[in-house]
Amino acid sequence: MANSKYEYVKNFELDDRLPPSNWLVVRIDGCSFHRFSAIHEFEKPNDEHALNLMNACALAMLEQFPDIVFAYGVSDEYRFESHMLSLMSLLHCSKILSITVSFFTSVYVMKWKDFFPQKELMYPPSFDGRVVCYPKVKIILDYLAWRQVDCHINNQYNTCFWMLVKSGKTEHEAQHVLKGTQKQEKNDLLFEKFGINYNTLPAIFRKGSCVYREMVEEIGKLDKNGCPVKRTRRKVTVGHFDIIKTDFWREHPYIIEEN
Amino acid sequence: MANSKYEYVKNFELDDRLPPSNWLVVRIDGCSFHRFSAIHEFEKPNDEHALNLMNACALAMLEQFPDIVFAYGVSDEYRFESHMLSLMSLLHCSKILSITVSFFTSVYVMKWKDFFPQKELMYPPSFDGRVVCYPKVKIILDYLAWRQVDCHINNQYNTCFWMLVKSGKTEHEAQHVLKGTQKQEKNDLLFEKFGINYNTLPAIFRKGSCVYREMVEEIGKLDKNGCPVKRTRRKVTVGHFDIIKTDFWREHPYIIEEN
Amino acid sequence: MANSKYEYVKNFELDDRLPPSNWLVVRIDGCSFHRFSAIHEFEKPNDEHALNLMNACALAMLEQFPDIVFAYGVSDEYRFESHMLSLMSLLHCSKILSITVSFFTSVYVMKWKDFFPQKELMYPPSFDGRVVCYPKVKIILDYLAWRQVDCHINNQYNTCFWMLVKSGKTEHEAQHVLKGTQKQEKNDLLFEKFGINYNTLPAIFRKGSCVYREMVEEIGKLDKNGCPVKRTRRKVTVGHFDIIKTDFWREHPYIIEEN
Amino acid sequence: MANSKYEYVKNFELDDRLPPSNWLVVRIDGCSFHRFSAIHEFEKPNDEHALNLMNACALAMLEQFPDIVFAYGVSDEYRFESHMLSLMSLLHCSKILSITVSFFTSVYVMKWKDFFPQKELMYPPSFDGRVVCYPKVKIILDYLAWRQVDCHINNQYNTCFWMLVKSGKTEHEAQHVLKGTQKQEKNDLLFEKFGINYNTLPAIFRKGSCVYREMVEEIGKLDKNGCPVKRTRRKVTVGHFDIIKTDFWREHPYIIEEN
Repeated sequence: MANSKYEYVKNFELDDRLPPSNWLVVRIDGCSFHRFSAIHEFEKPNDEHALNLMNACALAMLEQFPDIVFAYGVSDEYRFESHMLSLMSLLHCSKILSITVSFFTSVYVMKWKDFFPQKELMYPPSFDGRVVCYPKVKIILDYLAWRQVDCHINNQYNTCFWMLVKSGKTEHEAQHVLKGTQKQEKNDLLFEKFGINYNTLPAIFRKGSCVYREMVEEIGKLDKNGCPVKRTRRKVTVGHFDIIKTDFWREHPYIIEEN
Repeated sequence: MANSKYEYVKNFELDDRLPPSNWLVVRIDGCSFHRFSAIHEFEKPNDEHALNLMNACALAMLEQFPDIVFAYGVSDEYRFESHMLSLMSLLHCSKILSITVSFFTSVYVMKWKDFFPQKELMYPPSFDGRVVCYPKVKIILDYLAWRQVDCHINNQYNTCFWMLVKSGKTEHEAQHVLKGTQKQEKNDLLFEKFGINYNTLPAIFRKGSCVYREMVEEIGKLDKNGCPVKRTRRKVTVGHFDIIKTDFWREHPYIIEEN
Repeated sequence: MANSKYEYVKNFELDDRLPPSNWLVVRIDGCSFHRFSAIHEFEKPNDEHALNLMNACALAMLEQFPDIVFAYGVSDEYRFESHMLSLMSLLHCSKILSITVSFFTSVYVMKWKDFFPQKELMYPPSFDGRVVCYPKVKIILDYLAWRQVDCHINNQYNTCFWMLVKSGKTEHEAQHVLKGTQKQEKNDLLFEKFGINYNTLPAIFRKGSCVYREMVEEIGKLDKNGCPVKRTRRKVTVGHFDIIKTDFWREHPYIIEEN
Repeated sequence: MANSKYEYVKNFELDDRLPPSNWLVVRIDGCSFHRFSAIHEFEKPNDEHALNLMNACALAMLEQFPDIVFAYGVSDEYRFESHMLSLMSLLHCSKILSITVSFFTSVYVMKWKDFFPQKELMYPPSFDGRVVCYPKVKIILDYLAWRQVDCHINNQYNTCFWMLVKSGKTEHEAQHVLKGTQKQEKNDLLFEKFGINYNTLPAIFRKGSCVYREMVEEIGKLDKNGCPVKRTRRKVTVGHFDIIKTDFWREHPYIIEEN
């Protein structure tokens, strides 16, 4: 066989199988999105169109990859959770990482014009990614709580910062005003200076976005008695919930079931 | 700090640094491109527009990532070579893999309309990827030779196969005719049955595509004596060369220099 | 500094940290112990001195390494279980593997003369090892059950085989007699041919050995009323229990507690 | 099969194959040898018996493992070099690490009484180990040079330190005297204060030990003309050479040959 003298090169590709029976998180973050959002003039502190585009990508991910059971997104980052159900399945890290990041990117570019019909995409956006294994469901919930606490801290700071800047302060001055302030002080500043009640700002900004499969009831065709047949199916859904408290998880126990 | 009780989750992210002083190959392959090329009606056995789109993506890669010194592409696959020059640099496998595959995908979707102005992109294409380390330059050249031999074998077979099918055979009959034939027999079949001299088919089909930096001379402004100043610079270029023989590498020694 | 021009070589040592919050199994197996046991004339099918030496090594391991909570041994193999309690601890695979295997080997050679006072150690015995991570306690118990089922199957076969050989059959004939026999048939063969009730053979042969920390009560000094003070402490102990059923684990819940 | 319901546990053992065509270094270091050498009253700064025992272990290693081509030892550490000659061989990191460290330990304990006939081994010594891959021979030579420079720096310091302590200084005072001194100052101190010419101290202390295969000529039986037949073979040898300069390597080119 003509090719056989070179085939030894395949041997350098080492096995990168992930440990079975863990929860996987694929995290996807925009590369240099500080610059990307400046060039594409994203609104500050939150651009609803940009967030909705990210959510549309996440929704497409759950439709494309049935193993992903939950996704949580904030700003230009998204986290996808998947449980490696089958103990026997061989999941290669590079494969999972590359096809998820590639698909996410592909949807982002294709759907851009739906969310920004007036803005041309100036250059190819890209995302970096990482796959991380978590051995227990309790840790995956702590992971998600960590991201949502982070969302809150960043959003509150950014809301104050940009209100100060829009009201005439320089960026440097705004930083100086906020330095060392606590949560309550930031809320007071927003309310007293700008008449903003932080807790009434859109949940998408304050809580980030959750993408998951919701049980929905559908009314189908009539049965032989002429009654409409109800069917239950799981529909990929976007919501903005508190995922630090246990309520959401108690109402959707099937998401984090281990078998 | 509010977030500290959850921060332990970061500890699960293990270090995936690559071994220093190796050559890296990032390989990128279309996911399910059999279906993708059928739905988008790519010409058989080779679609020049589709190949040119792949080459445009590879060219954008070398412009985006200066560490990539050479790329070789065939059909829906591309291989990017990079030498980890700095012994001290910490290169994380996931980072390299995800940003290259994501950028490649992004360019593919953005440039689609330039190469297929009449065809709408029907769904988001995606690519999978892998990073492999090769310790010596000799092995990287064997790797490239392996891909080019493969290109030749596949292209010769596919050219025969599709000529037979286009001339009225079923796919099954065409397979039967070709089963067990050697290289020379396939060339004879093409010439005798279809008047095709295989060796005069476009080099892009027979040899695949190489993307690299060519030394080019440019004539710049006049100097103080009124003579134009010549400048040499490296320009990212696409060509279709034999990379199994040593000629190309002897003419471009700087590509595979180790320091 | 004189050494700095060479210090880059340290950079090639990649991080081999294990994923946190898993159960670890260190497995240790005798290298070429078929030959080792032949040369040192171990009794067949089980050499009690050799098993007791292995158990003494395991006992020394639990005394040396407090993180090891349980060990299970059969023939020339031992499995050590340890739970990575601290989520923050950085456990390097090579370090754990090398120090445990090295210590085990060291004790084996040092204690040889205690168990084989009449036999000289003819050449240096060695052991190979492996560290494996298990994300959940249920899986670690299945792992131990797997080893104990294996112990049973092998021991029953070997007992029959060596009785046949000692009674005059060749090794080949003995294999032929046993081929395809079921558990009950082997027990019948032992009873009918050799008057052996398999279930009354020593438990160390049939069940292997468990090494763990047993709660023991000790009577200490007298208190001020002249009554002896009782104290409870954990003492490393060897036993031969059924670890497939849940009884042992229910009686010693602290062994597999996760925090 | 009785065992099949548990066999899934084998799936957790991930592939830890090393990248082919690299040079391997197995490094072995004494665990807590500061304490071990104090309890066994090793002579300071160098105990010739302890060094000779380490060298005997290294010599046994080269006899046991033909793939090890060179070993370099200093104090309680040893480095074993091996070239992965076969591109196709699958070398598992855990296997290589555990069997080499285990064998080394086993020889150390067995041979103890040959080198310390008057001293009993008080407790089981152990060694930790690590396998590191180096892609090019130039780097492996830099690695060895790094160890030998380190040997020189440490030995010169320790020789001064222990001469000062033996002459009546406290350890603290000795440290203070040596703080910040250069190489030449240390040599002067040894010569002026203690009449010691550092360069005439035994090479084993100053240069460490090299273990490798030396070409030796042997005179065998007489041939038919009555002349003795000369034969060349490779004999495992210990020496104390400069391995920073290229002389040793030029005289023994076969050690670092890549095929």
